[in-house]
Amino acid sequence: MVKQKKVIGYLGPIGTFTELAVDKVFKKDEVKVVPFNTLPECLFSANKRNTDFTVVPIENSIGGSVNLTIDWLIHKINVPIQGEVRISIDQDLLVHKHNYHLEKRDFKIIYSHPQAISQCSNFLRKNYPKAELSYTESTAEAASIISKNSDQPWLAIANCNARNIYSLDLYEKEIQDYPTNTTRFVILGNEKLTIKSKSTKSSILLTLKEGLMLHQILEKYSLNGLELTKIESAPMKTEMGKYFYFLDYNTSGPNQRTLFDKCCKEIERLGCPIRRLGTYPCFKHQERKKILS
Amino acid sequence: MVKQKKVIGYLGPIGTFTELAVDKVFKKDEVKVVPFNTLPECLFSANKRNTDFTVVPIENSIGGSVNLTIDWLIHKINVPIQGEVRISIDQDLLVHKHNYHLEKRDFKIIYSHPQAISQCSNFLRKNYPKAELSYTESTAEAASIISKNSDQPWLAIANCNARNIYSLDLYEKEIQDYPTNTTRFVILGNEKLTIKSKSTKSSILLTLKEGLMLHQILEKYSLNGLELTKIESAPMKTEMGKYFYFLDYNTSGPNQRTLFDKCCKEIERLGCPIRRLGTYPCFKHQERKKILS
Repeated sequence: MVKQKKVIGYLGPIGTFTELAVDKVFKKDEVKVVPFNTLPECLFSANKRNTDFTVVPIENSIGGSVNLTIDWLIHKINVPIQGEVRISIDQDLLVHKHNYHLEKRDFKIIYSHPQAISQCSNFLRKNYPKAELSYTESTAEAASIISKNSDQPWLAIANCNARNIYSLDLYEKEIQDYPTNTTRFVILGNEKLTIKSKSTKSSILLTLKEGLMLHQILEKYSLNGLELTKIESAPMKTEMGKYFYFLDYNTSGPNQRTLFDKCCKEIERLGCPIRRLGTYPCFKHQERKKILS
Repeated sequence: MVKQKKVIGYLGPIGTFTELAVDKVFKKDEVKVVPFNTLPECLFSANKRNTDFTVVPIENSIGGSVNLTIDWLIHKINVPIQGEVRISIDQDLLVHKHNYHLEKRDFKIIYSHPQAISQCSNFLRKNYPKAELSYTESTAEAASIISKNSDQPWLAIANCNARNIYSLDLYEKEIQDYPTNTTRFVILGNEKLTIKSKSTKSSILLTLKEGLMLHQILEKYSLNGLELTKIESAPMKTEMGKYFYFLDYNTSGPNQRTLFDKCCKEIERLGCPIRRLGTYPCFKHQERKKILS
């Protein structure tokens, strides 16, 4: 539990999914939350130490990696990962209460963030084939637009949080195409979180030395019983085809953090530089109550 | 060389970098080129066989993978890769000739595609700190806006192709932050290209069987002298943390295509499904003259 009044930056505005992730780990009355309008502003501020912790999305189970977050972690800032939070992304179709009585076919425009619209694309094509789709900066902004235009036959795709903040009615519930839509957020900061979790992960950025093969590196971790949970080629930006490897390992087991560290040191002795991005607790939505209680 | 009047779809509008990639491989008077407004329209049309070949961006050396292209290749369409083209991305700052005489500080808005703006972000912060940045659907659209507004102190970031099409003047040349900015495009289609290249690549989508480790698979190819040029975890979309592996191998050497196929078959016998995405020639910009002559 975070005891002091820490400053928590996140990708805003209020009512976004990132705010839900913040709520999952931090108690609002014990911290000061600061929404930022864009991912770069969020990450820049984390690097400047204007915030104690900063929460940003890094991967969605449908859309894949958030390239901008990974790019900044590697190339533009130097702030360790202190935690991971996963939350279910349930997209709801929200309406101004004055328009709740309208039929589906009466709605002319559906507002939302491009990612939210793409997560519901089959549903929208089937149920609202004639409605115009209009992009907003965030799902929360879409909800805000609907709340201010009671005289327009418009809908917003957003989450239950935005629905409460902007006092909207629920027109259709959980309209996303894949039921298991989940987003992974990372908590960045220069100090450790005091919250514990059963699950721990370690992330590194590997530079492969010429003459060594990727499978030789992966084998070292594997022979020590360490599970690779994600591998990604991240552009070095010097030349097409030159990559760092962004590797996530499960280090939850007893002694696994020590083993992981030993492997990293062996690999460095072979001449492959490794940047430690963090060893951190992971929170899944099932653990929510435990964290908040 | 493509001899018949083939239909070539690409990510438009005219004047985009994708059009430069099309020009690199196909002779405009020998084919019919069809620009599409969005990547999904492009890829959907390739799948419907409305085009013979379709050219779309798949990776940028600064920004990384184009997630939407990879997502569609894996989940939404079934069209093999028949070729790869790489082109240098030189971003120029373009101006209407009536405004060429203006000083830097006089320009109020700079228009471009978000990716182009991000590729020049250091330059813009340093040289145009007060100009508003306004996003367009493509770099070509930005050039088009400038061409129609001679009375406005506006600039566009776009390429030399768009400059010629929209008759704009060059205000500043090659303003991108990294000199080696390159984009990789894939040519999709159901028939082989008749153009040859020294360089060949093979792409596959691997599903790892439980109990097998990624390094064991990679080792098989490696022991056969095959070079892994890119690895990517691509979401299965069923659950966070479940991935296909998108693997690119260099199969340019003599006999390497046969060896690659042998490895794939061995891995399939171990119980790991492999989807072949294509074995295809790769064209780099140095080869441009050879292709066009």
